[in-house]
Amino acid sequence: MKHSARLTQLIDALRALPGVGPKTAQRMAFHLLQEGRSGARALAGALDSALESVVRCRRCRMLTEDELCSICSAPQRDASLLCAVESPADVVAIELSGSYRGRYFVLMGHLSPLDGIGPEQLGVRELEAILNEGTVREFILATNPTVEGEATAHFLGELATRRGIRASRIAHGVPIGGELEYVDGGTLAHALAGRQSVT
Amino acid sequence: MKHSARLTQLIDALRALPGVGPKTAQRMAFHLLQEGRSGARALAGALDSALESVVRCRRCRMLTEDELCSICSAPQRDASLLCAVESPADVVAIELSGSYRGRYFVLMGHLSPLDGIGPEQLGVRELEAILNEGTVREFILATNPTVEGEATAHFLGELATRRGIRASRIAHGVPIGGELEYVDGGTLAHALAGRQSVT
Repeated sequence: MKHSARLTQLIDALRALPGVGPKTAQRMAFHLLQEGRSGARALAGALDSALESVVRCRRCRMLTEDELCSICSAPQRDASLLCAVESPADVVAIELSGSYRGRYFVLMGHLSPLDGIGPEQLGVRELEAILNEGTVREFILATNPTVEGEATAHFLGELATRRGIRASRIAHGVPIGGELEYVDGGTLAHALAGRQSVT
Repeated sequence: MKHSARLTQLIDALRALPGVGPKTAQRMAFHLLQEGRSGARALAGALDSALESVVRCRRCRMLTEDELCSICSAPQRDASLLCAVESPADVVAIELSGSYRGRYFVLMGHLSPLDGIGPEQLGVRELEAILNEGTVREFILATNPTVEGEATAHFLGELATRRGIRASRIAHGVPIGGELEYVDGGTLAHALAGRQSVT
């Protein structure tokens, strides 16, 4: 069964979405061209206008439509705290937890020399400019607890300590609500090593 | 964390895709605006051009870019066989099986009075026109084995038998490669009721 040219093109284009394989893409295309036509029109328009107006924050590289994102431009945020994360989704997750009042720096990835991602690609020059301002007192490393994330955290931590700024890593351990029995060994080892005295 | 207006718009628009919830939509939006910008541009273009040129086949209601779809316009297809399916994806699945040489009629849904989907919405008038031509000898009912699909098959079957055309329903039973142990009771009941003598 050969699809018509434009239908094939749409199915291929839908595969640009993360986690969408050929079968899901076909299902999406059929849906968009049947009952979802108004949704499809809205999606095409939203893509166009977002591509045109969503840029990166000049300071922290978060996605925004202004020169500075809503966090960087909010005066009530604590400028002495800076938190490095790998992606905009991480900013959203931390903000949803409601437990952080400082600012962010979005790396848009992690160090990965094999993929050609070095300090330059992670915006280290912009980061150093912020650290050089002298307002940051603590630099929180919230990269993912993967090999690449740890390496990136290590590298970024050096940048801060070299300038006499305290660098800290978010805690790793047993998730709240999790059961010890089902937690993997690596996490348990971290939880034990990071134990804190109960007073 | 409030996203900027256009980013929110894009996330909402992505939820028009089947099976995409708020979290997946956010992940897709971030991806499209970071490393996936060229893919996003291609997707917007593909949506526009597909919406403009993909229409339904005048005869069988399959999605196509021409007046007649590639199956309806192929002279080597057996015009004496007509197979009713609920969606274009079903046509693709049957074609992939390589076991059918006739034509199709795509209902684009099933009878569902509560949702306002009656015979009119399923194109019954066009279907009757085809059955009235006198070329169809067998009308195969390949709607889904759900309550609505069965009701639709029953209704459509009447249309054929009333005209002296043989109506048949695809067989339901244990899937090839499946194990009896894991097959649900309804399917087993169908498999037993539809047993065929071994010669």
